[in-house]
Amino acid sequence: MAVKDVGVGVDNEEAPAVTVAVVYHSVHGHTRVLAEHLAEGARLVPGARVHLVEVRAEDVVAGRWHDAEVLALLERSDAIVLGCPTLMGSVSAVFKAFMEAAFTPFVTQAWKDKLAGGFTMSASQSGDKLAVLEQLAVFAAQLGMQWIGVGDMPGNNWSGGSRDDVNRLGSWLGLMSQSHADQGPEQAGSRGDLITARRYGERIARLTQRWVNAVPYETDRMTEHEARALSASLRSAGMEAAGTEAAGA
Amino acid sequence: MAVKDVGVGVDNEEAPAVTVAVVYHSVHGHTRVLAEHLAEGARLVPGARVHLVEVRAEDVVAGRWHDAEVLALLERSDAIVLGCPTLMGSVSAVFKAFMEAAFTPFVTQAWKDKLAGGFTMSASQSGDKLAVLEQLAVFAAQLGMQWIGVGDMPGNNWSGGSRDDVNRLGSWLGLMSQSHADQGPEQAGSRGDLITARRYGERIARLTQRWVNAVPYETDRMTEHEARALSASLRSAGMEAAGTEAAGA
Amino acid sequence: MAVKDVGVGVDNEEAPAVTVAVVYHSVHGHTRVLAEHLAEGARLVPGARVHLVEVRAEDVVAGRWHDAEVLALLERSDAIVLGCPTLMGSVSAVFKAFMEAAFTPFVTQAWKDKLAGGFTMSASQSGDKLAVLEQLAVFAAQLGMQWIGVGDMPGNNWSGGSRDDVNRLGSWLGLMSQSHADQGPEQAGSRGDLITARRYGERIARLTQRWVNAVPYETDRMTEHEARALSASLRSAGMEAAGTEAAGA
Amino acid sequence: MAVKDVGVGVDNEEAPAVTVAVVYHSVHGHTRVLAEHLAEGARLVPGARVHLVEVRAEDVVAGRWHDAEVLALLERSDAIVLGCPTLMGSVSAVFKAFMEAAFTPFVTQAWKDKLAGGFTMSASQSGDKLAVLEQLAVFAAQLGMQWIGVGDMPGNNWSGGSRDDVNRLGSWLGLMSQSHADQGPEQAGSRGDLITARRYGERIARLTQRWVNAVPYETDRMTEHEARALSASLRSAGMEAAGTEAAGA
Repeated sequence: MAVKDVGVGVDNEEAPAVTVAVVYHSVHGHTRVLAEHLAEGARLVPGARVHLVEVRAEDVVAGRWHDAEVLALLERSDAIVLGCPTLMGSVSAVFKAFMEAAFTPFVTQAWKDKLAGGFTMSASQSGDKLAVLEQLAVFAAQLGMQWIGVGDMPGNNWSGGSRDDVNRLGSWLGLMSQSHADQGPEQAGSRGDLITARRYGERIARLTQRWVNAVPYETDRMTEHEARALSASLRSAGMEAAGTEAAGA
Repeated sequence: MAVKDVGVGVDNEEAPAVTVAVVYHSVHGHTRVLAEHLAEGARLVPGARVHLVEVRAEDVVAGRWHDAEVLALLERSDAIVLGCPTLMGSVSAVFKAFMEAAFTPFVTQAWKDKLAGGFTMSASQSGDKLAVLEQLAVFAAQLGMQWIGVGDMPGNNWSGGSRDDVNRLGSWLGLMSQSHADQGPEQAGSRGDLITARRYGERIARLTQRWVNAVPYETDRMTEHEARALSASLRSAGMEAAGTEAAGA
Repeated sequence: MAVKDVGVGVDNEEAPAVTVAVVYHSVHGHTRVLAEHLAEGARLVPGARVHLVEVRAEDVVAGRWHDAEVLALLERSDAIVLGCPTLMGSVSAVFKAFMEAAFTPFVTQAWKDKLAGGFTMSASQSGDKLAVLEQLAVFAAQLGMQWIGVGDMPGNNWSGGSRDDVNRLGSWLGLMSQSHADQGPEQAGSRGDLITARRYGERIARLTQRWVNAVPYETDRMTEHEARALSASLRSAGMEAAGTEAAGA
Repeated sequence: MAVKDVGVGVDNEEAPAVTVAVVYHSVHGHTRVLAEHLAEGARLVPGARVHLVEVRAEDVVAGRWHDAEVLALLERSDAIVLGCPTLMGSVSAVFKAFMEAAFTPFVTQAWKDKLAGGFTMSASQSGDKLAVLEQLAVFAAQLGMQWIGVGDMPGNNWSGGSRDDVNRLGSWLGLMSQSHADQGPEQAGSRGDLITARRYGERIARLTQRWVNAVPYETDRMTEHEARALSASLRSAGMEAAGTEAAGA
């Protein structure tokens, strides 16, 4: 099945409910790791029920994707996070087929005012990934959704930076991650990318709670100084190889 | 002075307060008309205090714009709507100078989680206006703002359509308007553009009330059928020439 | 068969040869009309052999498109013009599947230095069509191709303008056309769009002759005045309904 | 003076002449280093006369830039390469003011069919630099110019990659470079960035010779394998700190 219920955190029973769907396409599994970390971050928010929805190549028939169950799930979700690899400078054909199935909620305006976010993966550092995030944001706007960006200060932009930094590629419209072309999904992204994915997932779920249930909300402003300290602590703690756990899940 | 307090509607006294700033650059006045209609729409929302802020060419010195009063106003605003003409395919240099003054709130994250929207004007129908809206959305994301699009179904996309239609250019990321190159600001945009501007301003202010004050909110879903009826009623009612009143204000 | 040889003009026998491929996806036939007019324009250039290549939904299997014959044709083409409808704000999934098949020439750099151009169609006037042209230009750049834009002054940007104008939507990166949502392909685009398509096709073929065979070339600079006169003459001559002939071909 | 004649290589006397202008804005000097390397690369091509043109903040008065001498130089140039830092996600206001001065050649179509390219710099790895390249490409298309991309395979996209790699950020539409936020222009970019700048400059000048003078041209296809060997040889040869020489010039 394309849908996986990531579940609700144990301590969430008194919080009001929101539903966050993370919809993604992954060719070799790297983007899936990113989606999983994003979902894990969202699950940290009390009351957040999180679904991972995979758009699979085999479900695209004659250029079209359709899955009534998934569309029903998305219609009752409060936030939809969209992700896929950057292939030849834009959203993968498989994921685009899913996006075209959203012509129905475009006409009915059923997704209007839901929150949206986006993420993408490629082997190159830039790799034209911004084009994918722009494509997703334009799509979400057609559906009347509110777009939530990453919201973290940039990392790896100074002489002491590294791949472990939060937002190490310097992307804000959505989440970018980079995986080496000669490594499998068990080494997808970097520590910094995966931490950023978790933070982004949590950010979206918290904003969704604010939007839907008027839960008190305070803006999180991690400074560059704090971000660098976090990056350093992760390194010294010998955090296990990024992506391993999630990839094996 | 660059700032104009558009004021609060008379019936708003019991509503909680939000502040919406409409920041714009206008060369000949056409974009100003759009900004004014957007502000009028925002003012329809109980509790919304609306400011029009003009970024003027004469305030750009050696490529830089700075106005401490405006920056203070924006810091205490809950939503910032950004607009300028599309010149040579992107944001005007004057407005870009204003955007670069936002490097300070970028570093302090002072604008994080404010709402944002955008609008632009050109003589051509497409005129690469989407590039301006993308530029504004990428900018807002760098500042950690949530991006609010137009949210209206497209008009003027069938054999019975006209310039009077709501969203007659078919733009969602932000508001597009088109003015004839041989007409002055008293004929800026079209009826459809100005109605869309008002609707967009009201939408942003209502969403701001929801985000900031948890005011009950219901999604507005005007159908294409309703939009066409609205367009027809405006025409038959002989609505005065679009833009006249606002331009003279 | 997906490939149609549009042929070489009768008076072309002494000119050196170039090959121009127009590759497109069309859902209901509107984009096909645009492709056909573009091909007709290219065929006006002595020595230009023009191929129309249709990317069809039924050829996309499990999200992938592959056609060795088409790829061989493109490898020996001197210019490749890319077109598809704008669906949900970006290139159609079917056409994107074709683009992903270009991963092979990306790696071999087989398309490097070929000329490229792009075109797109939607029912809305803007309809986020610029996003498609940007997507195609970024793609062509990944392949090392040289990008050729429309090169015509804007039309329908003043009080006397109309849909019959050359470049009536004001697009330069590539060709935009707009068809009414309630009309079939026999009324695809507007007179202005189809004239612009022919001019763009001819422009690309002429530039290809210059690039490949060093054929003498003079820049065509039709002024806005001349463009308006052309538009007026077409109207008064009662040019048959735009698209009819090509659609029936 | 804003214009610097980089000159013609010594062995160029029998080659036909072309003129390449590299127009740039630089805040702290990092982008200038990139421009200089690009110009050096262009100068390797027999017959290429190369000009560096700096757009300076102090020349922007009331939001406008004007320099008749520079505009005359550009009108007689065969290729114009455009560059500036990425500031808040788009072209710098100062450089945008220069772009708006191109409204005159837009109307006269004086730049039509010239070649164009672009480059940009930021501290972040991605840093939304693609948005600047898209902005420049859309601008060039409005002027009817042909857009020339980088044309090199991506580097630093595998486990053995480094900042020394050719095209180490993976950008094709134009040239991206990244400088650390805590380092001055004497350490602008990386070895890989500066090599890529030289290659891009040479590529543009060679293509210009082909377009303008029909000079025989052969497509350069450096493989990823060759690019990695080049990167390794540079490192082992202890190439002097990237940018030093150019920055001191």
